[in-house]
Amino acid sequence: MAVDTLLEKALGGDIRSIARIISLIENDNPEKDALLKRVYPMTGKAIVLGITGSPGAGKSTLTDKVIEHFRRQGKKVGVIAVDPSSPFSGGAILADRIRMQRHTGDSGVYIRSMGTRGSLGGLSRGTRESVILLDACGYDVIIIETVGVGQSEVDIIKIADTVCLVLVPGMGDDIQIMKAGIMEIANVFAINKADKPGVDRVAAEVRLMLDLVKDRPWVPPVHLTVAENGTGIEELVASIASHSVFLKSNPDGVRREWRRLAFEVEEILLQHITRMTEKSWNAYKTDEVMELLLSRKSNPYAVAEDVLRKIIPGTRVV
Amino acid sequence: MAVDTLLEKALGGDIRSIARIISLIENDNPEKDALLKRVYPMTGKAIVLGITGSPGAGKSTLTDKVIEHFRRQGKKVGVIAVDPSSPFSGGAILADRIRMQRHTGDSGVYIRSMGTRGSLGGLSRGTRESVILLDACGYDVIIIETVGVGQSEVDIIKIADTVCLVLVPGMGDDIQIMKAGIMEIANVFAINKADKPGVDRVAAEVRLMLDLVKDRPWVPPVHLTVAENGTGIEELVASIASHSVFLKSNPDGVRREWRRLAFEVEEILLQHITRMTEKSWNAYKTDEVMELLLSRKSNPYAVAEDVLRKIIPGTRVV
Repeated sequence: MAVDTLLEKALGGDIRSIARIISLIENDNPEKDALLKRVYPMTGKAIVLGITGSPGAGKSTLTDKVIEHFRRQGKKVGVIAVDPSSPFSGGAILADRIRMQRHTGDSGVYIRSMGTRGSLGGLSRGTRESVILLDACGYDVIIIETVGVGQSEVDIIKIADTVCLVLVPGMGDDIQIMKAGIMEIANVFAINKADKPGVDRVAAEVRLMLDLVKDRPWVPPVHLTVAENGTGIEELVASIASHSVFLKSNPDGVRREWRRLAFEVEEILLQHITRMTEKSWNAYKTDEVMELLLSRKSNPYAVAEDVLRKIIPGTRVV
Repeated sequence: MAVDTLLEKALGGDIRSIARIISLIENDNPEKDALLKRVYPMTGKAIVLGITGSPGAGKSTLTDKVIEHFRRQGKKVGVIAVDPSSPFSGGAILADRIRMQRHTGDSGVYIRSMGTRGSLGGLSRGTRESVILLDACGYDVIIIETVGVGQSEVDIIKIADTVCLVLVPGMGDDIQIMKAGIMEIANVFAINKADKPGVDRVAAEVRLMLDLVKDRPWVPPVHLTVAENGTGIEELVASIASHSVFLKSNPDGVRREWRRLAFEVEEILLQHITRMTEKSWNAYKTDEVMELLLSRKSNPYAVAEDVLRKIIPGTRVV
C-alpha cells in the first residue's frame, strides 16, 4: 500500500494503518520523515503522559486504571510501553503488561510496545515519532510507560508533558535514585500499593523533598493509590489534567515546551547527519583505506578528515 | 603552558603533563584532536587490557595484583578506572579503588578515574583517547577497569585488545547477564574469590558455555584466582600475554583490529559532525525561530532541514 493511502487511513482512525506506520518508524524507513513532517501541524492537542518508576511499583496496573478512567471520559488513549531490549529485564515486564491487553478490544485504545535505544539506553527517537503520529491521529491522551531503569526514566521529560512517578512503600535503596534527579522530573506522584505498610513514610519523605524547593509555580501533588482496586485513580487523573492546563497557561510550561522543541530539532538534525556520515564512511571504507590504517601508514584522524571533507568540502577535523 | 611543551614533557614520561593532557581530553578541548593525531603514529605498542565483571567481583583487587605483576616484569602500567556518573553506583566503588592507590608512589604506574557517557552510558570517547595518549607515552600495559554495569561492559571490546571477565562463586542472576552477550566478549576468565564455596560450579558453567562454540581459534582460558592473596594471578597474566601474541599472529585478531579501526574512524567523524551540528543549531536558534515553532507556524522537521542546508548546502532532511 502506498504511504499516502496508509497515512490517510491512519488519520481516519484505522488502527491497523497506525500500527503499520509505527513499524515504518521503528524500521527507520526512508519515507517516515516526510510523513512526520506532514502530520506535524496536526499535533499539539494530546496530553502526553509519562508513567515511570521502579520495576515492581505497579506501573502497568496503574496505567491500566488510568486508561480506564480516560476512556470513561470518552477520550481516545494511545499507550507506548517501553521495553528495554536489555537482558536485565527478563520477561516479567511483558507478563505484567498482559493485564493492559484487555483494552485491545476497545477501538479507542491503542497499545504498542517499543524497545529502548541500546541495551540500557534511553528512549528511542521512534518513541517520540510515534507520539507525533498518535497525536495527529486524534488520540487525546498518549501514555508512555517506561520500565524505570536507567536513561529512559530521565529521557521521558523530553517527550512527556506530564511525568507521573510511581513509588511504593518499602523502597529502600530507591530513595537514592529519587534523590539523584528522578524526583525533579516528576510532576505528579503516585504512592502505589498504598494499602501496604510503610506508605506514610514514603509519602512523608516525598513531601519533605518537595518542600526543599521553594516558590515553584507547580507543586507536584502526591497521591496515594491502590491501582489493583482503583483507589485514588480519579484524583491522580484530575492532577494530570490540572498539570496539562498549568503548562499551557504558565511561563514555566512555555519554557519547557521551548526546550523540548529545541531538543527535537537537534535530534532530527543529528539523526540525519549521523545517517549521512555512516553512509559516506561505508562508501569510503575500502580495503585499501583499511590496509593503510592497519599498517599505520595512515591514522583514524587523517581518514576521518578525508571522509568529512567529502561530506562538507573544506572542513578540517583537526 | 603551550600544548606542544606539555606534549613533549608527557612523551618524556612526565606524569603531571600526562594528567593535564587527559584533562584537556576530558574537557573536549579544541586542541586535543591535533594532539591525538600527532601522537597516533607512536601508538600500537601497548597491551590494552579490559577488566570487567559484576560489582563486588573483586575487580579492583584483581587489577591491583595484575599491576603488581606487570611491574615486577619492569613494565609501565596505566590504569583507567571507569566510574559511572550514575546515582546507582554510590561511593562504594571509589572506596574499593583506594586499594590501588598504593601504586601512586610508583612512577611506573599511572591511575586515572574517568566517567561514563550518560548516567548508565557506555565508555566515553575520552577513555579511548586516553589509551592513545598513554600508549604513545610508553605505557606497556594499559588497563581499563569498568564497573560492569550496562553499556560500558559491552563497549570495552571496542577499546581493549584483551577482555578479562571477572566472575565470582554464587552469582545467581548474573548468569542471565553472562548468557546475554558479555560471555562472548571475554578472552580470559578469572573466577575470583576461588576460596569461596561454589567456585567449581561457576567454573563448570563457564566451561560448558565455552564448549558450545566449536572451532574457535582462541579458546578463552578459565583461571581460578584469589586476588586478595595473589593466587592464580601469575597464570592469569600469562594468558593475557598469550592472547596479545595470538591477536598479532591470527587472522581473527587482524579482523578484530580492522573492526576496531573502522569503529574509531566512525567515532571521530560522528564526534566532529555532532559538534558542528550543535554549533550550527545554536547559531540558528533565535527567539524568532523558536517563536515560529511554539506557534506551530513552523515545525521541527522544516527547521532541521534549514539548519542542515546551512551545514551542507543542497541537502534535504525529508
